[in-house]
Amino acid sequence: MTLAQLASQPANPPTETPFEVGLIGFGYWGPNLARNFAAHPDAHLAVIADRSEKRLEAARTAYQWAALKSDPMDVISDPAIQAVVIATPPETHRDLAIAAMEHGKHVLVEKPLATTTADAEEMVRVAQRCGRTLMVDHTFLFTGAVRRMKRCIDDGDLGEVNYFDSTRINLGLFQSNVNVIWDLAPHDIAIMLHLLPGPVRTVSAFGACHVHSAVENIAYITFRFDGNLLAHLHVNWLSPVKIRKTIIGGSRKMLVYDDMETSEKLKIFDAGADLARTKEEAYRTFVEYRTGDILIPRLDKTEALAAETDHFLRVLRGKEELVSGGNLGVEVVRVIEAAERSMRNGGVPVEVGG
Amino acid sequence: MTLAQLASQPANPPTETPFEVGLIGFGYWGPNLARNFAAHPDAHLAVIADRSEKRLEAARTAYQWAALKSDPMDVISDPAIQAVVIATPPETHRDLAIAAMEHGKHVLVEKPLATTTADAEEMVRVAQRCGRTLMVDHTFLFTGAVRRMKRCIDDGDLGEVNYFDSTRINLGLFQSNVNVIWDLAPHDIAIMLHLLPGPVRTVSAFGACHVHSAVENIAYITFRFDGNLLAHLHVNWLSPVKIRKTIIGGSRKMLVYDDMETSEKLKIFDAGADLARTKEEAYRTFVEYRTGDILIPRLDKTEALAAETDHFLRVLRGKEELVSGGNLGVEVVRVIEAAERSMRNGGVPVEVGG
Amino acid sequence: MTLAQLASQPANPPTETPFEVGLIGFGYWGPNLARNFAAHPDAHLAVIADRSEKRLEAARTAYQWAALKSDPMDVISDPAIQAVVIATPPETHRDLAIAAMEHGKHVLVEKPLATTTADAEEMVRVAQRCGRTLMVDHTFLFTGAVRRMKRCIDDGDLGEVNYFDSTRINLGLFQSNVNVIWDLAPHDIAIMLHLLPGPVRTVSAFGACHVHSAVENIAYITFRFDGNLLAHLHVNWLSPVKIRKTIIGGSRKMLVYDDMETSEKLKIFDAGADLARTKEEAYRTFVEYRTGDILIPRLDKTEALAAETDHFLRVLRGKEELVSGGNLGVEVVRVIEAAERSMRNGGVPVEVGG
Amino acid sequence: MTLAQLASQPANPPTETPFEVGLIGFGYWGPNLARNFAAHPDAHLAVIADRSEKRLEAARTAYQWAALKSDPMDVISDPAIQAVVIATPPETHRDLAIAAMEHGKHVLVEKPLATTTADAEEMVRVAQRCGRTLMVDHTFLFTGAVRRMKRCIDDGDLGEVNYFDSTRINLGLFQSNVNVIWDLAPHDIAIMLHLLPGPVRTVSAFGACHVHSAVENIAYITFRFDGNLLAHLHVNWLSPVKIRKTIIGGSRKMLVYDDMETSEKLKIFDAGADLARTKEEAYRTFVEYRTGDILIPRLDKTEALAAETDHFLRVLRGKEELVSGGNLGVEVVRVIEAAERSMRNGGVPVEVGG
Repeated sequence: MTLAQLASQPANPPTETPFEVGLIGFGYWGPNLARNFAAHPDAHLAVIADRSEKRLEAARTAYQWAALKSDPMDVISDPAIQAVVIATPPETHRDLAIAAMEHGKHVLVEKPLATTTADAEEMVRVAQRCGRTLMVDHTFLFTGAVRRMKRCIDDGDLGEVNYFDSTRINLGLFQSNVNVIWDLAPHDIAIMLHLLPGPVRTVSAFGACHVHSAVENIAYITFRFDGNLLAHLHVNWLSPVKIRKTIIGGSRKMLVYDDMETSEKLKIFDAGADLARTKEEAYRTFVEYRTGDILIPRLDKTEALAAETDHFLRVLRGKEELVSGGNLGVEVVRVIEAAERSMRNGGVPVEVGG
Repeated sequence: MTLAQLASQPANPPTETPFEVGLIGFGYWGPNLARNFAAHPDAHLAVIADRSEKRLEAARTAYQWAALKSDPMDVISDPAIQAVVIATPPETHRDLAIAAMEHGKHVLVEKPLATTTADAEEMVRVAQRCGRTLMVDHTFLFTGAVRRMKRCIDDGDLGEVNYFDSTRINLGLFQSNVNVIWDLAPHDIAIMLHLLPGPVRTVSAFGACHVHSAVENIAYITFRFDGNLLAHLHVNWLSPVKIRKTIIGGSRKMLVYDDMETSEKLKIFDAGADLARTKEEAYRTFVEYRTGDILIPRLDKTEALAAETDHFLRVLRGKEELVSGGNLGVEVVRVIEAAERSMRNGGVPVEVGG
Repeated sequence: MTLAQLASQPANPPTETPFEVGLIGFGYWGPNLARNFAAHPDAHLAVIADRSEKRLEAARTAYQWAALKSDPMDVISDPAIQAVVIATPPETHRDLAIAAMEHGKHVLVEKPLATTTADAEEMVRVAQRCGRTLMVDHTFLFTGAVRRMKRCIDDGDLGEVNYFDSTRINLGLFQSNVNVIWDLAPHDIAIMLHLLPGPVRTVSAFGACHVHSAVENIAYITFRFDGNLLAHLHVNWLSPVKIRKTIIGGSRKMLVYDDMETSEKLKIFDAGADLARTKEEAYRTFVEYRTGDILIPRLDKTEALAAETDHFLRVLRGKEELVSGGNLGVEVVRVIEAAERSMRNGGVPVEVGG
Repeated sequence: MTLAQLASQPANPPTETPFEVGLIGFGYWGPNLARNFAAHPDAHLAVIADRSEKRLEAARTAYQWAALKSDPMDVISDPAIQAVVIATPPETHRDLAIAAMEHGKHVLVEKPLATTTADAEEMVRVAQRCGRTLMVDHTFLFTGAVRRMKRCIDDGDLGEVNYFDSTRINLGLFQSNVNVIWDLAPHDIAIMLHLLPGPVRTVSAFGACHVHSAVENIAYITFRFDGNLLAHLHVNWLSPVKIRKTIIGGSRKMLVYDDMETSEKLKIFDAGADLARTKEEAYRTFVEYRTGDILIPRLDKTEALAAETDHFLRVLRGKEELVSGGNLGVEVVRVIEAAERSMRNGGVPVEVGG
């Protein structure tokens, strides 16, 4: 047991043997997953795989007890490993996850689940066939803010949700092979699908390529649900200011989630509008708005990835219902695929099947 | 000469006789126009017309020297009047403005110029035929912020403009006969057309009606120009927070115009992105961003409507070129009409003729 | 009855005859007082006095029905007048108010009540002797924010108040005869004395004169109350940013009042600190902080001066207990006098008698 | 050479042998110093000492190549060590630093330099006698913001400095043996003495103990310099909001340094006030303010401690003049001591000798 584990060890350690966990991919996000699984008392980070010798060297320094492998199949085929965490490039997710599940492992895979809906759907089918847990690492769902928003909506505090408006823009590093939708939109789409009722019916998207790049660096996406529910997302790598803001309008209350705020991330407004009929001008109805108190709830400050790691392990123990499972992962990819198709066609609305 | 005029009188009063001005409409916006024309040394607010006796009473209190009329035709047909200012409901603009111009008056008309492109175009034709000045009161064009932005773009400081993104949302009073696009979008569309080069090619719009109203209270509009220039507007009467923000991304600099700020309305960012080629990974090109100083320029704090009034009168004197003329007014209406058509068709992009 | 009065007239007009009110001083603040008394159904603004012919001309335009006088004694000695509102320079308050009360009038006088404690005390004695109401126009006490703060503290929500910290700084117009303490501090000192329990015991003040002026443009004032209650005020005419912020720390909750905010002026923090004793290091006690929700209460948006006018008239009717009476006015002047004495002596703490 | 060193290695490595560095203290701040010295190509972190076995264990994991000692004297008496970095409790600084310098080592010691002026002065005398460099780790002096402010003032951009106003408040962890002045004020006082000309002449301080603690959790300190220069500091462990803001008013420009801002930490205002004489009222002079552009300069984002580490090593190489040397450390302690004495005496101004 490591120092880090000792530090975060609960008063009553689990009586069950911790899960044997293998991690594939130690690039940008992998080290964060490693750190959280290493720190969790119900997991033993047994093996780390990466094709890069330099990255394995970094893994060795941090997790001296873990076995290191170049070939991910050495993790997948290891009979001692019970759960595999995949943090490799998206185009490799399908093959690695399917192989792991077919070897009887539970799988936690970085977002997006896959690069096509067909691949993502196949992954879900394999998970069902093999009876394994397939979870997607949509980290934002486990932030204190999103968990509080979820509770707000599920408890009916907001009333009927009217719209969901999200902005995720900043001066971001361009990538040569992935456009801004694939890079940034999965966060907001996962949050949106997690919070809102019902499936997206149509998607329209508009984008543009600047700085002589072949990939879009700005995009506006509109989502239509059943009824009057409308959602919208602005993602942008070329904004001079960093904005991470989501507004959700409900019939009873509304909320603003501003991830750039340190201590006031979530504001719940007791505000709305009601249909009214004026006395003086009886021939016209109009709408009256009302404003009330604003609540800034205290949020759980647990690191989102720590909460997510804990959730994954509790799901494996049968103690919690899976959040952010394969089906959500499929829907996120399906909606992004539709958005990209719309964007290629000048913004024509595209129906989202499923 | 009134007290107000005395107070604002310049050191050297004009040697020419001030223009005789008539105002039609003394409801919500008319009093502001009256106040500014009354205060300008080159105008004499001679007559005010309104159908409401109560409003005329208010006009009498404030402008004791002015003649008061119930019938707008009494202003239009008055041979002493040289310029007519129209602040009546949009559906009356066409007939009043045409009648006034045909009676030889110059016209300043509240926005929007008209309720249909056809009407707006006819007004421009009449202005040309009669040789009269037709100006639309797009007040925002005369704010210190927009004038500074215009200079920024015209001087090439921003380089090539890549995108224009505007948000105009708050908890607004619903109206029973006008949707949020007609209510709020004219401001941003006028600013956009004033600042950006070239015409809008296609418009797509998405809206929704909440609170059991028959008019849309939220809308997202995307505008495509030639090349890669993309513009977007979010207007919303049901937002718990008030946002009035425009971001313009250029190839050299970018700017953020936040009208809710009192002393830092405009920020010019020496920031952007350039195409780069990495050394280590020569097989891929990528884009590097750069950030520099931010400038918050001091803005002229003259009331926008005062600057606009002065501009209108100077145009009549032949001292300035008309800004916000009938043609701009036509384009604003044309774009809104296209947006509404797109919105009725589920967001399908609509070509903007012209 | 004027248009303005008609507009704001309640459904059931008062059965009693409105008070006959006279206003002395129509300079900077007088017009605001005139507007509010003119609009109140229980007042009739019968006469306005000012030494300046130009100002009387402005009064005539706005309040055609009111008598206009050059000599304030024409108001004071007018037997029809029941209440006199004084908005003249501070050095004239004493004589005018005393004369008015001795003529049997109730008096509302602009802040500060007087320029010396002795004068202010005499005014209170005259009020008592004549049985008249003497109220000081400390407008801030009637804002929605301060009224809510008062309720918060009186209800015990904050627990024991530990400190009061106020900042009132901006790039302000210098005055040749009044320093920044007399100009800005009365606002905060009135709020402080209104909200906090018990009298100020000692005051220390530090100031400096810049820009070759003979009056201080910056000052820091510290106030000691009984027990551990500490208050502090920073006033400054030479700040590049405008700050109007008050922080009040209580043993149970704390609040921040930011007058520059438009919609979130008051925040109530369920935060504090408690004495704790660590387990591991039993030899030392330490203090643990706790943080909870933040509440931004909806505030009454009535114009403060309208609420104050209404309060003054209700006090005269015997319907409300006097807030901001002569005694508070005396205390404000007494504390400012002490602050100035300390400032002249290099900041040595000065006891506040009383 | 470690991975971290490889990563940050410059193109042309130094030809000289890196300095042999020993670190004493691996508690709260020590690890940050270790990380920066380990990463610098001109230093070799050879030995780490700490009395705690647990801390040494943490040091071993991170810096496998370094020798580990329980007794600081093993570092101080090691003939191979050229520079000693001291990150132990303040009351130990004097003895450790003096012993190290007497053993011929250069010393970098955490702030405050010592707990009494006498101790601090003795340390400086020993440094002079032994010809060793004694530097105090006032980290803030090496932030991009403070370095830019220093340049601003030294270049005369601000003109004559009129005042320095600093606020450093938040809900902070109480400590049982150190009051809020010793905890927070050294940062601002070091910045103040670094930026402003001339010595502090008098100090007045007011504090209070809340939450039944014996140490002050809030304090207001006023500093007088020669002439009209005034400085003020508010430090507070019981504020519901976190504020880290410094305003410096100059005769030509002013600046605001807000450390809570991520991308707009420093704003330079082309604003000020000038003496003027009105035409109409020739008998009085008054002051006119002017406002101009605001500049938000791009700041060097190098970690302050990395810049400081580099500076320390360059000083040892004779390439840079010492900033934050022993003399500044003495002045900081002297001013704090005076502030504490004033606070114990109810705020009576205390002269700062020197």
